Amino acid sequence: MSDALPRRRFLQSAGAAAVWVPTTVKGYSAEEMRSRALDDELQVEVSKWELDTPALCVDLDALEANLRRMQEAVARNGIATRPHAKTHKCPQIARLQMESGSVGICAAKVSEAEVLLEHGLQSVLMTTPNVTPSKIQRAMRLRARHGGFIQATDSPENARDLSAAAVAAGITAEVVIDVDPGAHRTGIAPGRPALELAQLVDRLPGLRLAGMLCYDGGSQHVRGFQERRAQTLARLEPAVETRAMMLRTGLSTEIFSGGGTGTYNIDHANAGFTDVQAGSYVFMDAQYLAIGGATDPEVYSDFEPSLTILTTVLNSQHEGQVTTDAGTKACTLNQPWPIVKGEAGMTYRAGSDEFGTLRYDDPSRTYRAGDKLELIVSHCDPVVNLYDQMYAVRNDRVRAIWQIAARGKSV
Amino acid sequence: MSDALPRRRFLQSAGAAAVWVPTTVKGYSAEEMRSRALDDELQVEVSKWELDTPALCVDLDALEANLRRMQEAVARNGIATRPHAKTHKCPQIARLQMESGSVGICAAKVSEAEVLLEHGLQSVLMTTPNVTPSKIQRAMRLRARHGGFIQATDSPENARDLSAAAVAAGITAEVVIDVDPGAHRTGIAPGRPALELAQLVDRLPGLRLAGMLCYDGGSQHVRGFQERRAQTLARLEPAVETRAMMLRTGLSTEIFSGGGTGTYNIDHANAGFTDVQAGSYVFMDAQYLAIGGATDPEVYSDFEPSLTILTTVLNSQHEGQVTTDAGTKACTLNQPWPIVKGEAGMTYRAGSDEFGTLRYDDPSRTYRAGDKLELIVSHCDPVVNLYDQMYAVRNDRVRAIWQIAARGKSV
Repeated sequence: MSDALPRRRFLQSAGAAAVWVPTTVKGYSAEEMRSRALDDELQVEVSKWELDTPALCVDLDALEANLRRMQEAVARNGIATRPHAKTHKCPQIARLQMESGSVGICAAKVSEAEVLLEHGLQSVLMTTPNVTPSKIQRAMRLRARHGGFIQATDSPENARDLSAAAVAAGITAEVVIDVDPGAHRTGIAPGRPALELAQLVDRLPGLRLAGMLCYDGGSQHVRGFQERRAQTLARLEPAVETRAMMLRTGLSTEIFSGGGTGTYNIDHANAGFTDVQAGSYVFMDAQYLAIGGATDPEVYSDFEPSLTILTTVLNSQHEGQVTTDAGTKACTLNQPWPIVKGEAGMTYRAGSDEFGTLRYDDPSRTYRAGDKLELIVSHCDPVVNLYDQMYAVRNDRVRAIWQIAARGKSV
Repeated sequence: MSDALPRRRFLQSAGAAAVWVPTTVKGYSAEEMRSRALDDELQVEVSKWELDTPALCVDLDALEANLRRMQEAVARNGIATRPHAKTHKCPQIARLQMESGSVGICAAKVSEAEVLLEHGLQSVLMTTPNVTPSKIQRAMRLRARHGGFIQATDSPENARDLSAAAVAAGITAEVVIDVDPGAHRTGIAPGRPALELAQLVDRLPGLRLAGMLCYDGGSQHVRGFQERRAQTLARLEPAVETRAMMLRTGLSTEIFSGGGTGTYNIDHANAGFTDVQAGSYVFMDAQYLAIGGATDPEVYSDFEPSLTILTTVLNSQHEGQVTTDAGTKACTLNQPWPIVKGEAGMTYRAGSDEFGTLRYDDPSRTYRAGDKLELIVSHCDPVVNLYDQMYAVRNDRVRAIWQIAARGKSV
């Protein structure tokens, strides 16, 4: 059996001071890696290139730089971050976000909020209304146990249900109203309907109004900074007016949350806006790289890609293409497809459930079965949701194993 | 809080004798359901409509009918089934397949094979070559512990690596050669290269040749039975010739495995073909329904859709559309999109990570937040891979909770 060092043609360590190279290379399964960790911290020297693949890795230098850049930008603009955990589903990363200065964490589903609060996060805003008796009860149980739980609502009927459940549980629920930016996905219409909902929440015995949210998801990936800015400011205008109406009538507007990685440096232009719900900025992905930024119209370089998938060449018997072990179940079907890190003239496709296909232009290239490649993910949120753990890496060395504790928590 | 019975407009019980209706309806989380089960069997009466959503359900009547139909068909045609567990990733379903008469189970990844063998399945054929030292060791450990493990190989170098690892482990590995049907994904070229690989496997000290496989994945979803039949028989012809060459030179052809749900009633026409690796037949999905069958050119009705996702309406404030809680993370991005069971004039989209959108033509329809819908899945394999468990249902009542023990085992 060949025990040669796997060729690492695609190794890139942009920004890293030194690349740690192992003296001997073997392979490690997820179980073997966990047995070498103590409280998540790896106790032995293992290169990421030794991991059995597909393996999800996050580069700590890039992750930390992204946290810092975001926090500096919003602080400069007089607002805060309340990052969305739907992206990473990982309590460790949520803790790093809180340490970087975030005012709280967002969750998309009640099961996600449960995991975050059980793992010690203290302030969690659930951005999706809970509409069934069962899920309303789950949310109220969270509020009873964790004072920092905040719930969104988007209809008078739902607000009454929340209030009744809170009264029955002997608590007061903290509630923000969810205002529709025009996408008609969730949220109440801005203006009078939203104002009346806020007044109702303010009045109901089991509820305390904490403000509002308006998430303009449809603008996050608009290409071109000026186009994106114009679109999202136009879409948020009715919510800004709603906030002014709430303020005039003496209602709480202490929270006016929204925005994301695509608009984090635009959202503060909305009067009264308090915090950005950005998620993808910690990882970045091929979808966000393509939208262009304020300084670079071609590539959105405000944040660094930190999340990659390691994959292994399974078959190299045909010129100009190889088959890898990372297909749809490792990469999702999101497009643009994953990008081979540090390479040009290559296209990767993950359209097959179990296998990826890499095609390359350069006929002088040769690959062997067993070679490893590194992929920048297509769309970070659903990719993370496929993995039980991610490997936290610095200078290509695995430093920790982070459980993706809310993976699959779509309920 | 409203505790009215959730409206179940879309309830369909095709073929079921009686629908069990609960007297009181509450909601159950995954944890609450597990606490009500003993050895997977549910100990209390719970309707599937009481489950917190998104929830993955498998209808036992449909599943059992599919197992029976497949087994009767292949038996009639003088071949067997060796069903692929990449579809269901669930030891319980693999056991039902073995009880229905299958000769073994297939696995796509070594981590999947590990789960199946650890859960008591005895004959597992790993259809993907293992190419790294670490994974070859994992495969050889499986073979050492479980006599029924069979490994595919598709290159002379890999066969030598396997043999060296088997010798080092003091075992003889059982190996089939993987022959490329022309897709150039995995597999060695048919004819002389394949024959020479088979001869090498037969000669190497650590290996025992058990035959061959040739999986023509690209033909499974060809629309129209005759078109599908013509294409797959043409693509398998070189493999059939390879088998004849192997037979003439005295090599083992005891296994000639391949095919799938789209070609299960065609594959026996290949001389020497022994078993179908069908996976999707147990569940069916929107992709397979669209290919048409031998008797029904419009709908592939050879098997019944048994796998569905229950989802809840979150927002119904806009005419002609509702937002649900089952988006990409619950349904994948596979198309055709999920089908609302038993309904026409409706389109469902799962393009948003957390939310689904249902659009309907009939303006007289009304929905309320909290209503539940049932979706036939788009593509069963990657959908199952999103869930930790599936609810086994008969007459709409949850009978058991099946762990999807190999979920996420893409390594």
